[in-house]
Amino acid sequence: MPDESTPRFSDRLLAAIGAVGVPACVGLDPVLEQIPHAVRAAHPDPPAATYAFCLGVIDAVAGIVPAVKPQSACFERLGPPGTLVLHEVCAHASRRGLAVVLDAKRGDIGVSARHYARAAVQIGAHAITVNAYLGMETVVPYLDAGLGAFVLVRTSNPDSDAVQRARLADGRTVAEMMADHVAVLGAGHLGTAGVSDAGAVVGATKAADGPALRKRMPNTMFLVPGYGAQGGSAEDVRELFDSRGGGVLVNASRSVLYPTPPEDPDWRHAVALAAQRFTDDLRRVC
Amino acid sequence: MPDESTPRFSDRLLAAIGAVGVPACVGLDPVLEQIPHAVRAAHPDPPAATYAFCLGVIDAVAGIVPAVKPQSACFERLGPPGTLVLHEVCAHASRRGLAVVLDAKRGDIGVSARHYARAAVQIGAHAITVNAYLGMETVVPYLDAGLGAFVLVRTSNPDSDAVQRARLADGRTVAEMMADHVAVLGAGHLGTAGVSDAGAVVGATKAADGPALRKRMPNTMFLVPGYGAQGGSAEDVRELFDSRGGGVLVNASRSVLYPTPPEDPDWRHAVALAAQRFTDDLRRVC
Repeated sequence: MPDESTPRFSDRLLAAIGAVGVPACVGLDPVLEQIPHAVRAAHPDPPAATYAFCLGVIDAVAGIVPAVKPQSACFERLGPPGTLVLHEVCAHASRRGLAVVLDAKRGDIGVSARHYARAAVQIGAHAITVNAYLGMETVVPYLDAGLGAFVLVRTSNPDSDAVQRARLADGRTVAEMMADHVAVLGAGHLGTAGVSDAGAVVGATKAADGPALRKRMPNTMFLVPGYGAQGGSAEDVRELFDSRGGGVLVNASRSVLYPTPPEDPDWRHAVALAAQRFTDDLRRVC
Repeated sequence: MPDESTPRFSDRLLAAIGAVGVPACVGLDPVLEQIPHAVRAAHPDPPAATYAFCLGVIDAVAGIVPAVKPQSACFERLGPPGTLVLHEVCAHASRRGLAVVLDAKRGDIGVSARHYARAAVQIGAHAITVNAYLGMETVVPYLDAGLGAFVLVRTSNPDSDAVQRARLADGRTVAEMMADHVAVLGAGHLGTAGVSDAGAVVGATKAADGPALRKRMPNTMFLVPGYGAQGGSAEDVRELFDSRGGGVLVNASRSVLYPTPPEDPDWRHAVALAAQRFTDDLRRVC
């Protein structure tokens, strides 16, 4: 159960966004082969290299962006030490004032969902991505545990169209149906600024579908992947705004994590510059 | 990449089913509060208790059922030691000749999906449950890694109707659309007996939808949760058979794991008896 003294996720996120002035998130997707050689040389053990790289990235982007999104898979592939690294990475991000969205795309029910929620809290996440193909009972345990939950509605990958753009008999797409479910659930979990702890994942590469989804989810925070390396632009993000010109948390991963080849000894500086470019770009529209 | 000398999952599973003569699977969902008191007393540390309980269950059901399905959430909630326990549990199940289906309901794309697949292989799973709301590119990396993949099509929980029974403009339900995707993908991954490594999760509690789904997935192995404690019966399972009266792997969790109160000192015997009752019941129809 959430502690009464702990802020709601939506309030925490909005405060963090307010502090830096731009709704940007850096995805922590550490892929061993792309980690700077200087880090690999100093830390031959893969979990240690992953830890050192993520801490370097967090220190480089703290104060520039308000949030990070660790990709659980990249840590899980390292076995039990990877889970430990993920925990330490989340703790460090929190210490640096960053909101932490665990990208785990979990989706289960009952006691399993409650266990996943507890695991995410223990790991130190403030929010988690959730796959609700099993229905909205999948999402509730995360909210009950005090986490924000970003439900996959319209994802950025090309192949998602075959499922999410399928047209229902009532005229909605499957994604729009999911959006309606998120809006209904979210209405019961509003923070002090009127933004819900039940958010939605809507890809920047699917901006054409954005206005219809926003209409169905007026008070929902959109986590927006697909920016940068995947092709989404600042103009695409504009299509996803709420009526106040906000309501988005835009994520970039590869373009910020790996702006230069792994041979670059000055990679921390390059990451900070890439984060600055990302936020400058976003500020043109946000 | 899968080793050429490693059998395909579908062939491994069919061989295991053939050896005991019944397509039954025991779900390993260790919930600390329900673990027998004798185990808790001997192992005060939660991961150690979980390990001892799961090994006891595996030893009790080996030779009676052909497969087990560890629920990843129950291990993840224990933190890094939980992942280690999951690894040991899968290894022990394999040693006892059981097929291991990791119930992780993972769903991601690209490098993240490949990382999840690698993590599942490292853990010692032979197959994994996959949520394909992001499209079938979510499923491919598991098959490429040599794992069986059971795609969530029609899950056993009540709330799933709101998504999976939604009617498309072309007359199919969302679940039937997912079934068609599974059938197309699966056709490229057939084992020697003509059964695909791309399977489907179809709940015993949704047996009314079974015949329509089976028609769309004639060569697909159905992983069937919801049997026993959730209300599904042997008669329900019959609705899911393929044309040869097979094609199902029926799972029971709570009814086999916790047949007597946790005070029962003779819990191993009770678990073996419950597994026997489960398989006797199934044999009436399978």
